[in-house]
Amino acid sequence: MKKIKVAVLGATGAVGEEILELLIERKFPYSEIKALASKKSAGKTLEVKGQKFIVEEASPEAFNDIDIAFFCAGGNVSLNLADEAVKRGAVVIDNTSAFRMNKDVPLVVPEVNPEDLKWHKGVIANPNCSTIIMAVALAPLEKHFGLDRVIVSTYQAVSGAGIKGMEELQSEVLDPDYTPQVLPVASLPKHYQIAYNLIPQIDVFDKEGYTKEEWKMINETRKMFHRDDLGITATTVRVPVMRCHSESVYVELKKDFTLDEVREVLAGAKGLIVQDDIENQIYPMPLMLEKENDIYVGRIRKDLYNPRGLNFWVVGDQIRKGAALNAVQIGESMLAD
Amino acid sequence: MKKIKVAVLGATGAVGEEILELLIERKFPYSEIKALASKKSAGKTLEVKGQKFIVEEASPEAFNDIDIAFFCAGGNVSLNLADEAVKRGAVVIDNTSAFRMNKDVPLVVPEVNPEDLKWHKGVIANPNCSTIIMAVALAPLEKHFGLDRVIVSTYQAVSGAGIKGMEELQSEVLDPDYTPQVLPVASLPKHYQIAYNLIPQIDVFDKEGYTKEEWKMINETRKMFHRDDLGITATTVRVPVMRCHSESVYVELKKDFTLDEVREVLAGAKGLIVQDDIENQIYPMPLMLEKENDIYVGRIRKDLYNPRGLNFWVVGDQIRKGAALNAVQIGESMLAD
Repeated sequence: MKKIKVAVLGATGAVGEEILELLIERKFPYSEIKALASKKSAGKTLEVKGQKFIVEEASPEAFNDIDIAFFCAGGNVSLNLADEAVKRGAVVIDNTSAFRMNKDVPLVVPEVNPEDLKWHKGVIANPNCSTIIMAVALAPLEKHFGLDRVIVSTYQAVSGAGIKGMEELQSEVLDPDYTPQVLPVASLPKHYQIAYNLIPQIDVFDKEGYTKEEWKMINETRKMFHRDDLGITATTVRVPVMRCHSESVYVELKKDFTLDEVREVLAGAKGLIVQDDIENQIYPMPLMLEKENDIYVGRIRKDLYNPRGLNFWVVGDQIRKGAALNAVQIGESMLAD
Repeated sequence: MKKIKVAVLGATGAVGEEILELLIERKFPYSEIKALASKKSAGKTLEVKGQKFIVEEASPEAFNDIDIAFFCAGGNVSLNLADEAVKRGAVVIDNTSAFRMNKDVPLVVPEVNPEDLKWHKGVIANPNCSTIIMAVALAPLEKHFGLDRVIVSTYQAVSGAGIKGMEELQSEVLDPDYTPQVLPVASLPKHYQIAYNLIPQIDVFDKEGYTKEEWKMINETRKMFHRDDLGITATTVRVPVMRCHSESVYVELKKDFTLDEVREVLAGAKGLIVQDDIENQIYPMPLMLEKENDIYVGRIRKDLYNPRGLNFWVVGDQIRKGAALNAVQIGESMLAD
């Protein structure tokens, strides 16, 4: 197999660094990795898994000869540089929201809709973290029973706000006088403590009283499942947890089901692990699943009222499968074809 | 008005101490307060709001001459002593789950079903904390629009596990080597860290894969609303927050509604404050509502799919309105009649 040249744009961020780690860990068949970031970070040395990367400034020319470019430096950087990279022959796997709802760009979780990789025009979008985690659990249910309704409440880790979000939670715990500056949204006027607290706002407020994060869960899931009719409602909440997002999901299925059938279907799904042994108090918890590649599902039970209603609890590492790992897996799927 | 004699059984616990505080703070018309607890605590001095209470051992005779007895020393103590107190002429306001589903015992939140106070036979039950907080927000919706469906995911504070639960969270934050002993359920074999974590188990597992806490939210709400047909589903989760429970609630109403109508109805409800100004990032957060008596509701928005679907986020102090305050308010309502 031809060894390929890879660029990671946003290499100094939480997701960028995790992509570097995963490329090494998973033996991605690269001949070279360029670590790109803003001018400010150029010249810095990153050490990941014993390998050193000297950060270069992201410029159009930096993508000359690059085969696959992972973009995770924010939506504006993606809008500025994706075309330049594609023009130079790279396939861009974009981790920002810039292209996700663009009709010419496939939005892909390899376990959910790998077929959409076939029609890309140079850019492939990586979905939002909370969307990916939910979609991995919903996909087998959609395939075997059909989804009629989805109602989700999230419990999202501070890593969703990047390294600064994680540092903020640590600072608040260590120093009672620390003044919050990052959460819920760094660019908005008000910031609130997340330690010992919950913030029912992730991203800015958008139409109809929903946040952008809530809209992403709705619209991105519909796009990946090719189901514009799917009735999803989401409430997204930041919690004082470091890296893993958790979600309480209620679904109504189109077909009758038994719990055994549901368990079997979930247990057989790629990238999903059923961790549901309540007699022994076994269920997914975010602290215990840091750095895990799979999505974990538990607390699987029938609604007591609607015979087609089902509740479950799903947890996944936001930086891994919620972002970096899914992007790397998109790259792996492309190479496998 | 005749001054009355009060007993607080379980005075050394988180809820008992808060009841003492509230009786003083709200000028409850008592002539005397007896602080009762187990033999182990007898003789201890409690100081609350500058007043000293010498703890006496809870015995049947301790209730001689008592008019109102607040019980919050656990279900078994209530089962042992409630009859004894009633026999001696006391009205028992029981904060445990011992009598809640007993057909001869009214289960009351004064803002929800004050009429049920009239038929008590000596014992009145105080609902479960997460049930009370949800019920205060649901009651005006049930009254004005009718409830068709309720789907709730909770974010519950460690105070629900008493003073020991709060101490455990503090210990875990201060000492990385601390071994959890209390959460999720002290009497069960496995204990998990709650700091930086979420535990999707509150109370023991019961029928159908639901926890007792989840069953309480379902059954107690149905009882208070006199709606055995009400389709409720609940997922209850412990979060690293000290005192306030939060809940993400989705409801389907029986009648069409506008958001303005819903806001007006919620704003006019007793004990409920609408805190919902998203343009200014104003919404309820548990850290900011400690020691507040009211329940706060925000993030009120229409479902985007079902025209009768409504989402909101409700927060209340678990020890206050979720337990001690509601018990004291039951006492106040009894005296007002």
